[in-house]
Amino acid sequence: MSGSAEPRPDRIPVGGEQSTIWVGEGLLEHAGRYLVSPSGRFLLIGSAAARPWTERVRAALPSAPLLDLTIADGEPAKTLAAVETIADAAFAAGVQRDDAFVAVGGGVATDVVGFAAAILMRGVAWNAVPTTTAGMADAAIGGKTAVNHARGKNLLGAFHPPRAILVDPSSLATLPDRDYRAGLVEAFKAAWIADGDLAARAGASLPRILARDPSALRDLLAGAARVKAGLVTEDARDDGARRLLNFGHTLGHALEAAGGYGSLRHGEAVAWGIAAALAISRRRCGLPDADAGAVREVLRGLGPFPEPPRDPARLAALLSRDKKASARGTAGVLLERIGRARVEESVSAEEWLEAAAIMTLS
Amino acid sequence: MSGSAEPRPDRIPVGGEQSTIWVGEGLLEHAGRYLVSPSGRFLLIGSAAARPWTERVRAALPSAPLLDLTIADGEPAKTLAAVETIADAAFAAGVQRDDAFVAVGGGVATDVVGFAAAILMRGVAWNAVPTTTAGMADAAIGGKTAVNHARGKNLLGAFHPPRAILVDPSSLATLPDRDYRAGLVEAFKAAWIADGDLAARAGASLPRILARDPSALRDLLAGAARVKAGLVTEDARDDGARRLLNFGHTLGHALEAAGGYGSLRHGEAVAWGIAAALAISRRRCGLPDADAGAVREVLRGLGPFPEPPRDPARLAALLSRDKKASARGTAGVLLERIGRARVEESVSAEEWLEAAAIMTLS
Repeated sequence: MSGSAEPRPDRIPVGGEQSTIWVGEGLLEHAGRYLVSPSGRFLLIGSAAARPWTERVRAALPSAPLLDLTIADGEPAKTLAAVETIADAAFAAGVQRDDAFVAVGGGVATDVVGFAAAILMRGVAWNAVPTTTAGMADAAIGGKTAVNHARGKNLLGAFHPPRAILVDPSSLATLPDRDYRAGLVEAFKAAWIADGDLAARAGASLPRILARDPSALRDLLAGAARVKAGLVTEDARDDGARRLLNFGHTLGHALEAAGGYGSLRHGEAVAWGIAAALAISRRRCGLPDADAGAVREVLRGLGPFPEPPRDPARLAALLSRDKKASARGTAGVLLERIGRARVEESVSAEEWLEAAAIMTLS
Repeated sequence: MSGSAEPRPDRIPVGGEQSTIWVGEGLLEHAGRYLVSPSGRFLLIGSAAARPWTERVRAALPSAPLLDLTIADGEPAKTLAAVETIADAAFAAGVQRDDAFVAVGGGVATDVVGFAAAILMRGVAWNAVPTTTAGMADAAIGGKTAVNHARGKNLLGAFHPPRAILVDPSSLATLPDRDYRAGLVEAFKAAWIADGDLAARAGASLPRILARDPSALRDLLAGAARVKAGLVTEDARDDGARRLLNFGHTLGHALEAAGGYGSLRHGEAVAWGIAAALAISRRRCGLPDADAGAVREVLRGLGPFPEPPRDPARLAALLSRDKKASARGTAGVLLERIGRARVEESVSAEEWLEAAAIMTLS
């Protein structure tokens, strides 16, 4: 595709006119058309790993950005101190209320920049340009922004949706294979909970998706974005439809924390969490064996994933600390069939631990 | 009033069922009846100066608070580091999503605790117990929370209204006279912009108010809260009716910053800003001389206030940096008559500087 060709992206609205997701190959070279700033001025912030893509976005802006800042990658960089660094740089650059940030990078970059945008002058506009599969399928969509606290992930944050989200599958070219595959778990998860046709198409295209074939990838990413946008629009906060997105996350969060966030990628932990949820879903919701097998087949294809921690005492403690555990017990999202999930309040910690003990992806 | 007597407070809703302001003498001894927590559990945070009142609130809680923390007073304490300290203590205490904070103190305490509540787990409930005239008349009402940044006041923050606001005039007993008087400027301001009857009553009661007479004070504070609640309900963010609350603030903010936040209290700077706005209002909106005289008379009674900085170059630079200046020019709020104000977009920085050069309260 040439740099000047019209990208004809998919346009996916989120929450009415609040956010718009654009999905298309070669989109970054035309970023200026899709990014939103009330003043027309942008503050550009890219993660170190995403630098080539940040440069592409910069070249496509209508004018030189007010700020051009590179921030560190990785969960340890997701701190309040990083937000303060961004605030310092933005104020030094003369940011005003009607300017807009652009975050280029993975979930860490969009979470940190989105949170900085949320609190600067009590909220300035921002845009997300995710350059990882995890960011494209999940982190950049829905308005949740946050940084970590010593006590846990995402404990300090805000709801502050980006105005535009630019998903350009070509920016995945530089993503390491392990991150590429782990992030796709979230994309397939979206299909499994709410779009059986997408799940079938993407499952059949798995070899092409793993080979980073642009059109197969675009179909999956646009489909996953549509699912998430639909659930988020129905339920801007966290109490209803949106909870279905937590499929695989109740146990997944505990597995991720038990490993100290270093050993398992988020998507890998979610893959194990889904494996456990399949067993409970078969018993409790009559999930057909064929559907469970198809999900497992895709997870195997995305893997192999590192073995998860299985110490029941450690996992039990972490399950009870879950952010969503407080008011509702340790709820779970179960699969009735591919394309249809439901929240089950009565899944006990014991059931999760039992499933964790025997879960397998082989 | 005995500790067990029914306080019969005024009940003032803000923004529908979002917040409720309660105004009444002896309210703190019954705080447990009015404070709101979804879980029934509270995290109590009081400023050092408000400690006697925090103890009264603690004694009135339904059970021992999950956290009982004292924080520093004064603008220099209004930092992101203070928010992090609160977050650390709250997580260490085991805070969960459905718990609620209670902030006891002046505007600094309610701003810092409210902002911490806004970002912990993306928002937990909080309650405000202002113990200064500035907090009761202004800071605790309306949902604006923030901390300062080296570049200016309130530059990092969130909209996050407290569930309940408890205004107990008896908690003003320990407030130093200078703070007491400066805070009342905001209470009178509310009357001047939107409630002529209140302005007349409170003006006539000024000697009793200055003597901290409970019933005169309660009438003014409840009336000011009603004005602010009404404007905030009409306009939750910042673009419409709520802007009338900025009467005296365009120049006031510049005067406060020019003095380095040490020399003038916020209310004192607003008093000078109102003095300047009166001159412009007479010329531009036909504010009657009698009304201007009545306002000035009250400001004189609340003072004398320290002389403001008048260096035009310094003030001009600060006026252009006003948070609200960006999109709209240096707008101003002018008085048409006592009880009726309007936003005037076309007031130039030059007009403010001219008025600042000659303003007087004598």
